[in-house]
This record gives sequence, C-alpha cells and structure tokens, in this order.
Amino acid sequence: MSSVHGTEVEYVVDLAGIFVFAVTGALVAVRKRFDVVGMAVLAEITALGGGVLRDLVIGAVPPAAFRDVGYTMVPLVATALTATWHPHLERIRRTVLVLDAAGLGLFSVAGAMKALTYGLGAPAAAALGVMTAIGGGILRDVLAREVPNVLHDRQLYIVPALIGAGTATGAYLLGARGYLVTLVTAALAFGVRLVALRLRWRMPRARGLEDRT
Amino acid sequence: MSSVHGTEVEYVVDLAGIFVFAVTGALVAVRKRFDVVGMAVLAEITALGGGVLRDLVIGAVPPAAFRDVGYTMVPLVATALTATWHPHLERIRRTVLVLDAAGLGLFSVAGAMKALTYGLGAPAAAALGVMTAIGGGILRDVLAREVPNVLHDRQLYIVPALIGAGTATGAYLLGARGYLVTLVTAALAFGVRLVALRLRWRMPRARGLEDRT
Amino acid sequence: MSSVHGTEVEYVVDLAGIFVFAVTGALVAVRKRFDVVGMAVLAEITALGGGVLRDLVIGAVPPAAFRDVGYTMVPLVATALTATWHPHLERIRRTVLVLDAAGLGLFSVAGAMKALTYGLGAPAAAALGVMTAIGGGILRDVLAREVPNVLHDRQLYIVPALIGAGTATGAYLLGARGYLVTLVTAALAFGVRLVALRLRWRMPRARGLEDRT
Repeated sequence: MSSVHGTEVEYVVDLAGIFVFAVTGALVAVRKRFDVVGMAVLAEITALGGGVLRDLVIGAVPPAAFRDVGYTMVPLVATALTATWHPHLERIRRTVLVLDAAGLGLFSVAGAMKALTYGLGAPAAAALGVMTAIGGGILRDVLAREVPNVLHDRQLYIVPALIGAGTATGAYLLGARGYLVTLVTAALAFGVRLVALRLRWRMPRARGLEDRT
Repeated sequence: MSSVHGTEVEYVVDLAGIFVFAVTGALVAVRKRFDVVGMAVLAEITALGGGVLRDLVIGAVPPAAFRDVGYTMVPLVATALTATWHPHLERIRRTVLVLDAAGLGLFSVAGAMKALTYGLGAPAAAALGVMTAIGGGILRDVLAREVPNVLHDRQLYIVPALIGAGTATGAYLLGARGYLVTLVTAALAFGVRLVALRLRWRMPRARGLEDRT
Repeated sequence: MSSVHGTEVEYVVDLAGIFVFAVTGALVAVRKRFDVVGMAVLAEITALGGGVLRDLVIGAVPPAAFRDVGYTMVPLVATALTATWHPHLERIRRTVLVLDAAGLGLFSVAGAMKALTYGLGAPAAAALGVMTAIGGGILRDVLAREVPNVLHDRQLYIVPALIGAGTATGAYLLGARGYLVTLVTAALAFGVRLVALRLRWRMPRARGLEDRT
C-alpha cells in the first residue's frame, strides 16, 4: 500500500474525509428520491470525483481512487448507512456540515500537496487543492440537476478551501512539510469555514445585484 | 488497425454497440428539439463518452475514440438515420431498448477487459466496465438537462452492467479469456437486463421512501 | 515560457481569447445571480475548460492551463471587470458576440494544431479543435443548469468551428504551417460565424420538427 498512501494515518484520515463527502452525496440522492444504486453512484462520485479530476490533470493515472479498493468501499458503506438512517442524518444536519467542513480542509490541503509532489507550480497546486475539495460536490449537484451550491449560495466554501490549499502550498515551498503542516493548514481552512457558517458570512454578488435578493 | 482493435470481429461488434448508443442519444436530442448539429454532438458523446472516460482513467491516451475514424463516423450515420426516421424509431422503442441492453452487456464486458489489460485491479476493472457502459448515457442526460435516468428510474440498468463487468473480471483472473468468455458474460448482463425489463423489477429506494411514490 | 507557448505573439492572442470566453462565463454567472467566487469559477471553466479537455485527451498533462499562471489570472481579471461593468457589457452584447466569434475561430484552429503536433490523425484533430472551441461553453451552460446553447439554439456555432479546425488540419497535412495559415483559417471560421449571425442562418432540426417551433 505504501506506493499509494503516505502512511497508515494519512490513509485513515483520507477514508474519513471520503466517508463524510459520500454521506452528503447519498443524502442529496435521498432527497431526489434516487434508488439505492443511484445513491451509491452519487456517493462514489461526490466522494472521489474531485480527487479523480486532480489525478487526471497531474497525470497520476490510474487515479488513486482506482488503485485502492478501500476508496471505493467506503462510499458503499456510507450509502448503506444513509439508506437506513437518513431521517436521523437530516436531523443532525449541522453536525454533517461541520464534518463536511473538516473534509473540505483536509482535501484542499491533501490535493495541493499531491499536486506539488507531481511537480506542479504553486498557483496550479493551490487551484488543484480547491478542485480536489469542491470537484466532487459540483459533480454531485450537476447530476442531481441542481446549480452547484458553491457557485450561488454565497457561503464561504471555496474561500476556506483556497486558504487551506494556499497556505499548504506556501509552507511546502518554504520547506515546511510533514504532519504538522498538513494539520495546521487543514485546521485553518476548517476554522474559517466554521466561523463563516456561524457568523453567516456571505460573499458579495456583482455590483448592483445586492438589494434585489 | 491491429494496434487499436483486437480483431475485425470485435471491431464490428464495437461499432454496432456504438451505433445503438448513438441512436439513443440522437433520439433524446430530437425530443429536446435540438438541431441536427446538436443531435450529432449528443450522439457522439452518448456513444463514445463512457469509453473516453475509461481510457482517460486507465491512461490509454489518446482514447480509442480518437484513434479510429470509424468510431466517430458511426454516430454521424446514426444521426442521419434518426433525423429522417425518428417517428418510426419512437414506435419501435421496445426494440431500441433491447438493442440498448445488448450494447450495455457488450460495453460493460469490453470496458472491464480493457482495464484489466492495462493492469488495473479487479474492483477497479469492474467499476470501469460499468463506467464504460453507463458513462455516455449519463453525459447524454446531463447535456439534455435531465436527471440521469440510471440514477432515479429504479430499473435494473447498472446492476446488469456490474454483473457483466464482474463476471468478465472474475473469468479473466481465473485465466479464462477469449471470445467465448466475452460472449457468455455479455449475454449474461444482456439477459438480466431483459428479464428485469420484462418482469418490471425495480430497485428499492432508501428506507421510508417507498410508499410515497 | 518557450516550452509552453510557441511565441510571445501566440501567447498574447491566446490570452485575448481566454479573456473573451471568461467574460461570457462571468456574464452568465451574473444573470444567474452567482456570487463573485461563483463568477470566478464559471469564468475559469468557460475560458479554460475546452483546452483542458483537449490536453487530457491528447495526453498533454499537466494541461497548459495549469502550467502558466497567466491562463489562470486572465479569467480573474475578466471576473473583476464583469462584476463592476456587467450592465454596460449587457448593452454591448453584439460586440461581445463578435469577440466571442473571434475566440471561436482562434481556439478551433489552435486546438486542432496542438492535437496534430501531438500526433493525432486528421479527423481527431478536427474534432479536438471543435472541442477546444466549444467545450468551455458547454461546461458553462451545464453548471448554470442550462441546456448547452450550441446544441439547441440552431445558430451556426459548431459549424464555423469545424470549418476552422478542418481547414487548419488540411493545411497542416499539406505542409502549410505557421502564422499565415493560423490567421487565414481562424479568420475563415470567424467570418462564417459573423455572416451566419448577420443573416440569421439557422441549422435544421430533424425531419418533421420544423414547423412546430
């Protein structure tokens, strides 16, 4: 497994992030009244889509999602749990949002790091970190025939991802690598997202569109 | 041509599958009142999209669809025929469904086989077989601004594809390769799909959603 | 930079095309009331999406869009300008259409040329030229939850792209390469698009659908 994952700890953390994203995909599928197979497909794409896009762009083929069966199994587990307990998961929607924010921080940092190890430049690595974090959710919303949430709901979702990916990239270029850097930068993105949720920060629209909401 | 296709027979069978998928794309375009160029684009993407995605994932670039002009020409022929005879094709919709089921079986098996020859593991190969079979149809529905049929219509479409891709992968790993294996596993997927259509088998939804339909 | 771009002139022309496409993406985002981050994402994807798809298909990874920060910065500038002056841009919509036609001609020719230098055959190169020119716009419309304009609006948009990509491919195969060829073939596509706009040429639909519009 060492050829795919850095360490066992990173692997487990990765799977945890995949689990949370898969649950958000499966919940959208329940709201759209998909059948259980449709739920599983949407859970897989939500959880793995961002990473697969990143891997295709950086030339890491086959993408990690197709090299380790754990990545594919976790969304199936998330689907089974969501199919059974979705009313309960809807009631703890705030908790799901918090866990999703943790996944956001983690994926943005891990995505940028992987791009850097494949030799991409700093701006591209930061962009790919964001793509890793938000790509699966965008695919989820497109398949559910929704305008992607992150584009119009004015919440700070992409900005925290950019902060995570950007600070991780900066630290990497300054020679600071390893666990602690990943932890701190992912926590920073996570924290900004939580504060933005709590204080209901909103992104502005184009000039003149504000008041007509 | 031998660098792209296994044999002439496989090539012709491949083109037949592409033709059928292209017709389903062109028919959706007619229903959406696309112009003939839009029909051609949708036919191409429906017929070739799943295979292109598979080839990008396994690192077979340029994808087969861009290496043989036959793959690109067949959807244009399908578009011309559909533009002329779409009322007749709508009347024989059941026949189109049966032919589509044959394409489903074929593509799921061929997709898994190709992934295996590129060195992917068994679970990834099975997943890529399914992606080959359903990817084009999902892209078709997204471009026509529909929720992808396979996610919500509760018919057994993905399950037969998984059966075809899974049994073909299993046979391959057991050393059984060649025509007969392809034929039997594709026929199995085809058969399951036909029986499911005939008997109106339906996939369940998440718990508690059944009765409100 | 010479490893990424042919020459400085080509680079500047490329950035101009990216700028125009980014503006069309940002304008759609304004109409859909996206926030400014959503505008930026849509501008980036509209401007760079077609080229990224082409580069993934021909195996040019990382795609050019991820190898030069200029490609990523231009859509951000376009977003800032559009966020501020979108009412003015809506008033000069005809001018935007003309500039978009210039981008269409340019991208179709540049896309085909790049595919040819990567060893793809003539039909694939022509198809990839078209994909370069229309891919970003299709992604833009899908993310804005619209049926892609080019598929149903019956305007000649894909046909001029095919003319540009096709003639450029033909000239390349005949040994005619360089500035003048690019200029003439891109101008041809541009001209056909402008004439089609001016004379309101329309593509036909499938047989029998014409009169019910």
